[in-house]
Amino acid sequence: MHSRLSPAGSGQAHEPIGPAGPIERKSVTGMPAVGMVGGGQLARMTAAAAVGLGATFRVLAESPTESAALVSHNVVIGSHCSLPDMSSFATKCDVITFDHEHVPATVLVALESEGVLVRPGSAALRYTQDKLAMRDRLSALGVPCPRYAPVSSAADVVAFADGSWPVVLKAVSGGYDGKGVWVCKGPAEVEAVVAHGVALLAEEFVPFRRELAALVARSPSGQGAAYPVVQTVQVDGICREVIAPAPGLSPDAAVEAEAMALRIAAELGVTGLLAVELFETRSGALLVNELAMRPHNSGHWTIEGSRTSQFEQHLRAVLDLPLGSCAPAAPAGQFTVMANLLGGTDPDVFDRYIHVMAADPAVKVHFYGKEVRPGRKIGHVTIVGGPDDGVEELRDRARRAASYLRWGTEDGD
Amino acid sequence: MHSRLSPAGSGQAHEPIGPAGPIERKSVTGMPAVGMVGGGQLARMTAAAAVGLGATFRVLAESPTESAALVSHNVVIGSHCSLPDMSSFATKCDVITFDHEHVPATVLVALESEGVLVRPGSAALRYTQDKLAMRDRLSALGVPCPRYAPVSSAADVVAFADGSWPVVLKAVSGGYDGKGVWVCKGPAEVEAVVAHGVALLAEEFVPFRRELAALVARSPSGQGAAYPVVQTVQVDGICREVIAPAPGLSPDAAVEAEAMALRIAAELGVTGLLAVELFETRSGALLVNELAMRPHNSGHWTIEGSRTSQFEQHLRAVLDLPLGSCAPAAPAGQFTVMANLLGGTDPDVFDRYIHVMAADPAVKVHFYGKEVRPGRKIGHVTIVGGPDDGVEELRDRARRAASYLRWGTEDGD
Repeated sequence: MHSRLSPAGSGQAHEPIGPAGPIERKSVTGMPAVGMVGGGQLARMTAAAAVGLGATFRVLAESPTESAALVSHNVVIGSHCSLPDMSSFATKCDVITFDHEHVPATVLVALESEGVLVRPGSAALRYTQDKLAMRDRLSALGVPCPRYAPVSSAADVVAFADGSWPVVLKAVSGGYDGKGVWVCKGPAEVEAVVAHGVALLAEEFVPFRRELAALVARSPSGQGAAYPVVQTVQVDGICREVIAPAPGLSPDAAVEAEAMALRIAAELGVTGLLAVELFETRSGALLVNELAMRPHNSGHWTIEGSRTSQFEQHLRAVLDLPLGSCAPAAPAGQFTVMANLLGGTDPDVFDRYIHVMAADPAVKVHFYGKEVRPGRKIGHVTIVGGPDDGVEELRDRARRAASYLRWGTEDGD
Repeated sequence: MHSRLSPAGSGQAHEPIGPAGPIERKSVTGMPAVGMVGGGQLARMTAAAAVGLGATFRVLAESPTESAALVSHNVVIGSHCSLPDMSSFATKCDVITFDHEHVPATVLVALESEGVLVRPGSAALRYTQDKLAMRDRLSALGVPCPRYAPVSSAADVVAFADGSWPVVLKAVSGGYDGKGVWVCKGPAEVEAVVAHGVALLAEEFVPFRRELAALVARSPSGQGAAYPVVQTVQVDGICREVIAPAPGLSPDAAVEAEAMALRIAAELGVTGLLAVELFETRSGALLVNELAMRPHNSGHWTIEGSRTSQFEQHLRAVLDLPLGSCAPAAPAGQFTVMANLLGGTDPDVFDRYIHVMAADPAVKVHFYGKEVRPGRKIGHVTIVGGPDDGVEELRDRARRAASYLRWGTEDGD
């Protein structure tokens, strides 16, 4: 078995995970209804997964032209910051879950106090909204993390650095895709970041060999499932490429990463998906970089590359359905590669899209329906390797497709 | 390469395939808009495929509770028999295609004369709506078919039988899923069928070894792609099981079936998918039973079991996009098995659904959102084999899942 599934009930919930009563099944089909808060591409891809699963899927989007709002049958326009909007949305759903981490904690807690099934719950989501709380909690659990400290002045940062630069500064709340993260080479750069006036955390700069991600699912019953650990490649803080499984990762390190992610999910009371972004240091040690409690860019490869896509798995987990197999679709020893599509300067990608499809019939292009803007994630491509495809060849094909879609040449960045 | 893709332009169109001009891209995203006529499960699964492809997908459904109408963002309620409804629907689409074969030919021709891109076109669809025309055309092409004759009286049938019973009677138009097909053991049964008053065709009863299906796609540019030939198992005229690829089929027979289907698609001017249902006789000969020009039950396995699902492939073909790889996801020598889910007597399948997911995490359940009625197709399950899974074991697992979902026992029919 490639997939790791623990039986229901085998996990220990160390945080409250909200009411566990039976689901009412608020849909015309007799199947449960899931509401996803946020109308981005994660909700869009979850909507597609819900079609097969038979669950009713609702989206709370900020505008009717958001990625998920363009394809979902049940779209409610509203604000994730408004308790009345959220509360009204929840009345039509058996459970609500999230496309992003931006719902204010006060709103989450208020919904829970109304009896809404919020998955993951506010107690877990807190650790994605407050990086200092996350670091403190993981450290208390003995999970390896970069050295860190809260800082409130440039002097604090200089003291933390203790002569060893660069130092990484992170906004305690609200960052994503490299936003809210600054690598400072010295005190002058620190001054500029501190001047933003946001709450900050300092972390040691980890000269990693590469970045990995461990993606697991956990259901309210405590069942867990772990996908193969992947390698991720970031450029300017944005994920550009994912290789599944991580090439050359030792079985021991893979098991360590999966077990660590399953343990964090259980200890933090996560329901749904948990993505653990990791640094692999030059000595082969693993350090936790970030957590996300939702479908994650590092898991897009699972749509074609795994028996159960991360989007279906997230739905199964938040509905407390038995989890699906995380086994890879590619044969043992083979790889699946995903590359993100970023917008170029030409907003009309259609002709380039045709070119890419013609050039490589095995490349699967996913478009998010988003307006093209330079550098914006507008889609991704995936290639599942066959018996004759080496990993570097797959990476090259994925990169060429992504480059052509962005720039009209296969040799761009 | 497992998939067979011919370069664009290599095919010969022997029937008009409608205007081939550039697509206008009638959507807010800059991608083309496809309209599917009919709101059944085929449209539902095509809607999910359109999400990934980035194409805008619209459905013309008869009611808002039809299978596809429950999940599609762009649903128009109307009748496929009404030219005004169809014409109005088509104005919002770059191309229209079909979930079924029931649009009157007069409506199809009128739309084409208005300049609507109808794919497949009326000239091709004619052969799915008139089985006598289909038999005549295939025979003229030298495609092997059962012996047949039009009949207008019981005496005609008795003459056709010439003492050799049973004889198969088929309604020339309007049949599906075993409806409109009668196996008559003698003149008395013939009388009862003739009394229905529908136009009939008599065919020899073929004592086949098994049934096969060849599924191909063809684009307006003439590009073709063929999926591996599958074995289908019918009970009472309803498809119950599909095994991909057909076990033990010789490479020569597989190539013969694929080439035959590609040739029929080209000769008949099909755009989109063409499913060719075949009898494999006891001597190993292949005879064409039926044609369908749309996603087909024999191709549901491709959602998980092929690099490109039949639903995505149909969209690519009708949009004249380059076709995707038809390579199977299972490693060479392995199988994918699909079993249809039929409704039982208990309309609430949810508890049984949970059981099946828990019993076999590799089984993928697809629900169509349809009200459960005894014997009605309400979904399907698929299992993609791994290196250790024999085909009979996969069939057994699929059957047990389908049986449990229907009857609450793994040992039902």
